[in-house]
Amino acid sequence: MDSLTIIAASSIIAAGLAIGLGAIGPGIGEGHALGRALNSLAQQPDEAGTITRTLFVGMAMVESTAIYAFVVTMILLFANPYWNYFLSKVGG
Amino acid sequence: MDSLTIIAASSIIAAGLAIGLGAIGPGIGEGHALGRALNSLAQQPDEAGTITRTLFVGMAMVESTAIYAFVVTMILLFANPYWNYFLSKVGG
Amino acid sequence: MDSLTIIAASSIIAAGLAIGLGAIGPGIGEGHALGRALNSLAQQPDEAGTITRTLFVGMAMVESTAIYAFVVTMILLFANPYWNYFLSKVGG
Amino acid sequence: MDSLTIIAASSIIAAGLAIGLGAIGPGIGEGHALGRALNSLAQQPDEAGTITRTLFVGMAMVESTAIYAFVVTMILLFANPYWNYFLSKVGG
Amino acid sequence: MDSLTIIAASSIIAAGLAIGLGAIGPGIGEGHALGRALNSLAQQPDEAGTITRTLFVGMAMVESTAIYAFVVTMILLFANPYWNYFLSKVGG
Amino acid sequence: MDSLTIIAASSIIAAGLAIGLGAIGPGIGEGHALGRALNSLAQQPDEAGTITRTLFVGMAMVESTAIYAFVVTMILLFANPYWNYFLSKVGG
Amino acid sequence: MDSLTIIAASSIIAAGLAIGLGAIGPGIGEGHALGRALNSLAQQPDEAGTITRTLFVGMAMVESTAIYAFVVTMILLFANPYWNYFLSKVGG
Amino acid sequence: MDSLTIIAASSIIAAGLAIGLGAIGPGIGEGHALGRALNSLAQQPDEAGTITRTLFVGMAMVESTAIYAFVVTMILLFANPYWNYFLSKVGG
Amino acid sequence: MDSLTIIAASSIIAAGLAIGLGAIGPGIGEGHALGRALNSLAQQPDEAGTITRTLFVGMAMVESTAIYAFVVTMILLFANPYWNYFLSKVGG
Amino acid sequence: MDSLTIIAASSIIAAGLAIGLGAIGPGIGEGHALGRALNSLAQQPDEAGTITRTLFVGMAMVESTAIYAFVVTMILLFANPYWNYFLSKVGG
Amino acid sequence: MDSLTIIAASSIIAAGLAIGLGAIGPGIGEGHALGRALNSLAQQPDEAGTITRTLFVGMAMVESTAIYAFVVTMILLFANPYWNYFLSKVGG
Amino acid sequence: MDSLTIIAASSIIAAGLAIGLGAIGPGIGEGHALGRALNSLAQQPDEAGTITRTLFVGMAMVESTAIYAFVVTMILLFANPYWNYFLSKVGG
Amino acid sequence: MDSLTIIAASSIIAAGLAIGLGAIGPGIGEGHALGRALNSLAQQPDEAGTITRTLFVGMAMVESTAIYAFVVTMILLFANPYWNYFLSKVGG
Amino acid sequence: MDSLTIIAASSIIAAGLAIGLGAIGPGIGEGHALGRALNSLAQQPDEAGTITRTLFVGMAMVESTAIYAFVVTMILLFANPYWNYFLSKVGG
Repeated sequence: MDSLTIIAASSIIAAGLAIGLGAIGPGIGEGHALGRALNSLAQQPDEAGTITRTLFVGMAMVESTAIYAFVVTMILLFANPYWNYFLSKVGG
Repeated sequence: MDSLTIIAASSIIAAGLAIGLGAIGPGIGEGHALGRALNSLAQQPDEAGTITRTLFVGMAMVESTAIYAFVVTMILLFANPYWNYFLSKVGG
Repeated sequence: MDSLTIIAASSIIAAGLAIGLGAIGPGIGEGHALGRALNSLAQQPDEAGTITRTLFVGMAMVESTAIYAFVVTMILLFANPYWNYFLSKVGG
Repeated sequence: MDSLTIIAASSIIAAGLAIGLGAIGPGIGEGHALGRALNSLAQQPDEAGTITRTLFVGMAMVESTAIYAFVVTMILLFANPYWNYFLSKVGG
Repeated sequence: MDSLTIIAASSIIAAGLAIGLGAIGPGIGEGHALGRALNSLAQQPDEAGTITRTLFVGMAMVESTAIYAFVVTMILLFANPYWNYFLSKVGG
Repeated sequence: MDSLTIIAASSIIAAGLAIGLGAIGPGIGEGHALGRALNSLAQQPDEAGTITRTLFVGMAMVESTAIYAFVVTMILLFANPYWNYFLSKVGG
Repeated sequence: MDSLTIIAASSIIAAGLAIGLGAIGPGIGEGHALGRALNSLAQQPDEAGTITRTLFVGMAMVESTAIYAFVVTMILLFANPYWNYFLSKVGG
Repeated sequence: MDSLTIIAASSIIAAGLAIGLGAIGPGIGEGHALGRALNSLAQQPDEAGTITRTLFVGMAMVESTAIYAFVVTMILLFANPYWNYFLSKVGG
Repeated sequence: MDSLTIIAASSIIAAGLAIGLGAIGPGIGEGHALGRALNSLAQQPDEAGTITRTLFVGMAMVESTAIYAFVVTMILLFANPYWNYFLSKVGG
Repeated sequence: MDSLTIIAASSIIAAGLAIGLGAIGPGIGEGHALGRALNSLAQQPDEAGTITRTLFVGMAMVESTAIYAFVVTMILLFANPYWNYFLSKVGG
Repeated sequence: MDSLTIIAASSIIAAGLAIGLGAIGPGIGEGHALGRALNSLAQQPDEAGTITRTLFVGMAMVESTAIYAFVVTMILLFANPYWNYFLSKVGG
Repeated sequence: MDSLTIIAASSIIAAGLAIGLGAIGPGIGEGHALGRALNSLAQQPDEAGTITRTLFVGMAMVESTAIYAFVVTMILLFANPYWNYFLSKVGG
Repeated sequence: MDSLTIIAASSIIAAGLAIGLGAIGPGIGEGHALGRALNSLAQQPDEAGTITRTLFVGMAMVESTAIYAFVVTMILLFANPYWNYFLSKVGG
Repeated sequence: MDSLTIIAASSIIAAGLAIGLGAIGPGIGEGHALGRALNSLAQQPDEAGTITRTLFVGMAMVESTAIYAFVVTMILLFANPYWNYFLSKVGG
């Protein structure tokens, strides 16, 4: 196997693991927060505005950990610096 | 094994793992949120509109972590940049 | 082993893992939501219509994470782009 | 090992894993939902009709995730497209 | 090792794993449901008929996920299509 | 290693794993159900007959998932179709 | 390694795993049931007879899943059909 | 490695795993039961006789699953039938 | 494989694992905190300002553990000191 | 490697695993029982004698599962029958 | 592979694992503490100053375990003593 | 590798695993018991003497499972019978 | 590979695992303690001094287990006795 | 690899695992105990002296399991008997 193939294969495997593992925590955490939010809404309907606003800002923060994993996956697939280096070496 | 075969085989395995692992967290999280939503609905039927609206917007956000995994799987299968490179090299 | 055999074998293994792992989360999540729904129904029978409607729409959303895994499995088995490529190369 | 043997062996292993792992989530989830349903029944006997109807429709939805795994297992054993291809190649 | 031996050995291992893993979920789930059913029975003895009927129909549905695993195990041992093929090839 | 030895060794390992894993779920599930049954008995002694009858019928159903694993183990050890085939081939 | 050694070594390893894994579920399950039984006894001392009788019959059922594992272990060590076959072949 | 060494080494490893894994379940289960027994004792001191009697008979039953593992370990170390066979073959 | 390829491949795999594992803890933790915050908001709406301010400062601290993992991932991909060394050696 | 070295090395590894795994269950179980005992003591100080007596007899029973693991470890290290055999063969 | 490559590759893998694993515990722990803090704030708004001050000092202590992992990761990447030694040996 | 090196290396690895795994159970168990003791103390300060005495005697018993692991570790490092044998053989 | 490289590589891997695993327990434990402290503070504001003092002394003790792991990591990286020996042997 | 290198490398790996695993249990256990202590303090401030004294003596006992792991780690690194032997053999 030449270098380009090794870099490509390990990037693909790493991308799959990063997004697969990285979706577990935020998925469970956001679902937990959402469930609590709806309980609060039922308990204090007058505060619906504050609750939903806080919920969605907060969920965006939880989502950010999933987005880190997504960003790394995208970098591994489309902007991989190691791939670019080996590509330029081959092309040079 | 030539490069094309290695890239294809590792993409297939990574696609299977990404969607398999990535469905665990959102599946549990959304089910938890939905269960809480229905409790809230039974407790405060007058707020059904706000609760279900918040629920579905929130579930869409939880779903997004599963969708990241799905998107990565689709990219790995249908728009894999490494595959395209090796394909063009073979074809060139 | 030639390329076609490797692609076929890795697709089969990935299909088995994807649907096997992908059924764990939604199975637990939907069961949790359904159990809560029935508690709510017993507590507030007058809202049966709203509760069951919200339940089934919500379960469809949870189900969607299982369906992603199922769709990927089906693609791996019946519309695998890597298989099609190698097949056309052999046939060409 | 020739291609047919590899395809057959990996299909058998994948079938065993898919149904083995795929029965864990729905088994726990349905049992949870059923247990809650019976609590609700004892609490609100007058709603027995609505509760059991919702329960069985809901369990059918949970069951569907197990059925996906079962369907994939059956496809892997009896309608495996990769097997059919290699079989036709041998027969041709 | 010839093909027949490989097919037989992988079928045996897959059968053991399928039923071993496939008994975990339904075993826990049914036990959970049964325990809740008996609590409900003690709480509302007048509804014993409805509760036990719902319980056994529901447990049959949970059992079905174990039965899928059992059926696949039986197919792997006694009606394995791959085995039949290789057997006919040897016999032919 | 000849075929008979491979079949025998893999049957023995599969038998050990099937019964070892297959006893975990029903063991926990039945113990859970039994504990709840005794709570119910203490709470509603007048319904002892119904409770114990439902308990033992229900435990028999939970037990059935363990029995599936036991049956497969016995088949693997004493009525293994693959073993019988290879035996007849050696004997023929 | 000759066949007899392989069969013996795999039987020993399978026996150790079967009883080791097979003792986890019933051990936890019976302990759970016993604990609940003693709570019930303290709560309803007049029903001590019914509770302890139900407890021991029930624990015997839970124990049965451990006994399956024990029986398989004993068969693997003392009545192993594969061992007997290879022994008779050597002796013949 | 000759047969005697293989049998001895695999017996030692299997013995260590069997007792190590086999002590987890009963250890947790008995501790759980004992804790509940002491709560019951504090709640209903007049029934101390019945509670402690039931506790120790019940713990003996839970202990039995650990004893199965211990017996198998002892058999593997001191009455191993496979060892005896190979020993007699060497001695003969 | 030359040194540059090894460094690149291990950096890619380590990057994928670091962000994949590192998103699990903060994702669950932030979701838990957010859920509690919304309960508090519903319970004490007058303190909404203090609660949300504390929530977002606190979540930023929890987020920091995910950011550590993200920073390490970025360093591994874009500012890897080992890569730079080997690159300069090759270029020198 | 000669037989004596293999037996010694596998005994050492098995001893470490047996006591390491075998201390997990009883450690958690006894701690749980002790915690409950102290709650009971605080709740019913007049029964301190019965409670502590039952506690220590019971903990001795839980301890027994750890002692089984310890005994097996000691046998593996100081009274290993396989070691004695190979030693006598070397010495003979 | 020469020594420098081995040191670099193992440092990269160890850095990824250290920060990936080391972010799990503090992430969950801080989220738990933050959630409790907000409940306390809602319950006792007059003590908001003491609670938030204690919270942030405490979270800094929890954060310290994540920082240890981060520091080790940074040392492994930028101040690795083993790397420096081998580098000086090569340069000398 | 000669026998002495193998024995020494396997003793070191087994010692590390034995104490590492063996500290998990007692650590969690003692912490649980201590926490409950302090609740009891706060609830029934007059019984402080009995509670702390029972606590420390009980914790000594829980500690014993950790001590077993520690003793085995010390034996493996400082009084290893297998090491002594091989040492005497080398010295003889 | 020469001895120095092996020692360096295994020290780096061991350092990464030690701090990565060693941060999980204290991180969760301290977060749990901190959360409880804040509940206590809200419940009994007059005891804020005693509670926070006890909290920080206690957290320092919990932190100590993380510090053990950190100290071992630092020793492995900067004061490794094995490294020093091999270094002096090379330098001598 | 010579004996000294093997002993050193295995000691380093075992030291890292021992302290990494050994910090999990005490970290969680002490945090749990500390949290309960602070609840007790808030509930019964008059007993602050007894509670904190019992807490710190108890935590020292829990800490002891972590200290065992730390002592073994230190022995493995600085007073390793196997290392000393091989060192003296080399030096002799």
